[in-house]
Amino acid sequence: MRVLAKELAAVAASKSVEKVEMKGWVHRVRELGGVSFVMLRDRSGIAQVVVEGKADLTLETVISAVGVAAENPKALGGAELRAEKVEVIAAAAPDLPYPVNQDPDKIGLDVILDNRPLSVRNPKIRAIFKIQSTIIDAFSSYLRSQDFTEMKTSKLISGGTEGGTGLFEVEYFDTKVYLAQSPQFYKQTMVASGLERVFEVAPAYRAEKHDTPRHLNEYVSLDVEMGFIESERDLIELEKGILTHVFAQVAEKNAEELALWNAAVPTAKQVADAPIVGHDRAIELAAEEAALQKQGGKKAFEINPEVERLICSWSMREHGTDLVFINEFPRRHRPFYTYPLDAARTMSFDAIFRGLEITTGGRRHNVYAELLEVLPKFGLKAEDLSDYLSVFKYGCPPHGGFAIGCERITQKILGLPNVKEASLFPRDRKRVRP
Amino acid sequence: MRVLAKELAAVAASKSVEKVEMKGWVHRVRELGGVSFVMLRDRSGIAQVVVEGKADLTLETVISAVGVAAENPKALGGAELRAEKVEVIAAAAPDLPYPVNQDPDKIGLDVILDNRPLSVRNPKIRAIFKIQSTIIDAFSSYLRSQDFTEMKTSKLISGGTEGGTGLFEVEYFDTKVYLAQSPQFYKQTMVASGLERVFEVAPAYRAEKHDTPRHLNEYVSLDVEMGFIESERDLIELEKGILTHVFAQVAEKNAEELALWNAAVPTAKQVADAPIVGHDRAIELAAEEAALQKQGGKKAFEINPEVERLICSWSMREHGTDLVFINEFPRRHRPFYTYPLDAARTMSFDAIFRGLEITTGGRRHNVYAELLEVLPKFGLKAEDLSDYLSVFKYGCPPHGGFAIGCERITQKILGLPNVKEASLFPRDRKRVRP
Repeated sequence: MRVLAKELAAVAASKSVEKVEMKGWVHRVRELGGVSFVMLRDRSGIAQVVVEGKADLTLETVISAVGVAAENPKALGGAELRAEKVEVIAAAAPDLPYPVNQDPDKIGLDVILDNRPLSVRNPKIRAIFKIQSTIIDAFSSYLRSQDFTEMKTSKLISGGTEGGTGLFEVEYFDTKVYLAQSPQFYKQTMVASGLERVFEVAPAYRAEKHDTPRHLNEYVSLDVEMGFIESERDLIELEKGILTHVFAQVAEKNAEELALWNAAVPTAKQVADAPIVGHDRAIELAAEEAALQKQGGKKAFEINPEVERLICSWSMREHGTDLVFINEFPRRHRPFYTYPLDAARTMSFDAIFRGLEITTGGRRHNVYAELLEVLPKFGLKAEDLSDYLSVFKYGCPPHGGFAIGCERITQKILGLPNVKEASLFPRDRKRVRP
Repeated sequence: MRVLAKELAAVAASKSVEKVEMKGWVHRVRELGGVSFVMLRDRSGIAQVVVEGKADLTLETVISAVGVAAENPKALGGAELRAEKVEVIAAAAPDLPYPVNQDPDKIGLDVILDNRPLSVRNPKIRAIFKIQSTIIDAFSSYLRSQDFTEMKTSKLISGGTEGGTGLFEVEYFDTKVYLAQSPQFYKQTMVASGLERVFEVAPAYRAEKHDTPRHLNEYVSLDVEMGFIESERDLIELEKGILTHVFAQVAEKNAEELALWNAAVPTAKQVADAPIVGHDRAIELAAEEAALQKQGGKKAFEINPEVERLICSWSMREHGTDLVFINEFPRRHRPFYTYPLDAARTMSFDAIFRGLEITTGGRRHNVYAELLEVLPKFGLKAEDLSDYLSVFKYGCPPHGGFAIGCERITQKILGLPNVKEASLFPRDRKRVRP
């Protein structure tokens, strides 16, 4: 019977003398007084395997060890396997080019990403993606509980949804198409279909040349769209519901992974207490906060990364939470489909979490005649958007939605300095492999 | 209080005289003796709203109707809303270019797909995607219950995984990359990372020029990979577990949607009874079946669509199930990474469901030296696959996996003639919109 690392202590405590098998990777080997201590890594964790004599195993070799489970307060997890037989399942070459068992904090980001097939074997790095898996599951399961339907839409589109810039071009048989920046129009189409409530988890693409710790050219977008809303405040309520569930699930399922990063998720109260601040007021508050922190305090012109950092710092001080919703963005800062609040402002919002924008969303235009009026102001022509416009011409309720950047929320939960660390195989301007 | 169509009967049965609101789309209007019967469609279904006088509502207009819920055995669902006030939320233009409320069976496929934003409003078409949502959820939740981790990998790769043909080229800044045909190498990398068990739900791309009822150029691939297996039989067991759960969930959550298509999912017993037939034997059985059906009975050279149809017909007769696993494909029919059974055959399999291949999978090479030997036979060079090979050079257990085509299993559950019907926004050689 195979026993996983996390199960070993319970088997040892049962005092069974039956032999068990463990399988996994040689994470570390220590020799001491004629005995070898092999740290065996499997999908559940790491456990100590004690082998008589010299183990003679290269790091990362996959082995099977058969023996008796025994309690040992000094061993990791309080138990060890006293091996009677160790077999090599797949040997690892001795010239390991990446130190799998070292703390990645001491290793440069490029080295980690260049060697991803090996660096992801490190338990601390693997923990990032265990948590990401929980985030995706919790996002989806919460929305299903609220009567949302999951959809999968094409990532190959014949034109841009946000104005046409920043698109990757694809050679598609005898024509050219583009990689979708978001499922924006498809989400709206499906709300208008009568499904009313939809979500999608899928890649999104931005052909932007930036190389910053907050951008990826390919990312996983957690997209939501909902019909019959009044304003962006309904969406903020929905996002609070999602985040509460996501954080609770990560806390419950990934306690070990959080501990490896010395990280904690916000409490349900912190999500509930997240303030909603108007765009202009947020800029003022950020300037006041900067003055308080003796950083000058000059007012910014827009919500930039520094404002995002400062507004969370203000919120933590004033409301005990570093989740903030900024709403009522100016019309010129938002895409054409954003619903106006008045002549200057829109029913839109961003969610800022621990100093980083993780969500952009808002109510959308749903009235055909209003859309036709708005298009020319954004340099768009109705004839280029006929598929899209047909959704509104034939009955579309008030609706809106948002997207959570999956890598960004992962990054901020764990306190990773760079969003690329939260992408398994990140793509940036220079990185297209592995 | 808003009441959904599916809730109306219960509200009516409670004999409450409180006024309720219904919101939705005008699906159909019938006038009779000074009264209008408006069929209102919302995310839950359709309900009858009775309005005094002429309703004067165009089809697909979004309305709010306030009134009293009343039992009426003659109405759909046994209840109706007797409206006192009807308001237009969003009017639909009267020139509806697609007949939303007509049975799509009478409408050509191109018309349906060209008008997707409207055709998807049809309840029978919408049902396809409600079921697809359940399939994705059931696939994921079953695997999570078996200790699998969900992963999201890049769809932009620097080279082909299956030999380099059939790839879409992407202009990526100053270089060219390709759309991934599958997450094959990434799945294997993550198994070897020690996660052991991973799955991914993501788009996959094939730049093949075929235009058949069974092919899409972009599809949703339900991918699985698992470590520490012995042969493809372990994978077939896993797929049986997945399919049993998927079918049970669809039966439980989508009874109405199945009824619209007059469709039924296989029983758990039918999945359990699915035979495993060797590749060569499958071809023989298909020939015998063809003879029995008086269709000649000439032996095919490979598993082609006709053999797939015939083997399911044989299985239904012999085993009472039209799910069949074909294993032990010849080495020349499988990619280089497939693990050999002997000189001629591989530890590989296909799942054939209701006459269509829905899955391809198998055990993979995991021993570095064996991979190096195999590559030249497939015209591949180790130096072009250095990232991939590093996975095996440093310890990778025996493993394997498979992928289920999400649109194909949806198609076969519902008996759709063309797989494009099971894709929300299908892409084929000529179709890149909507």
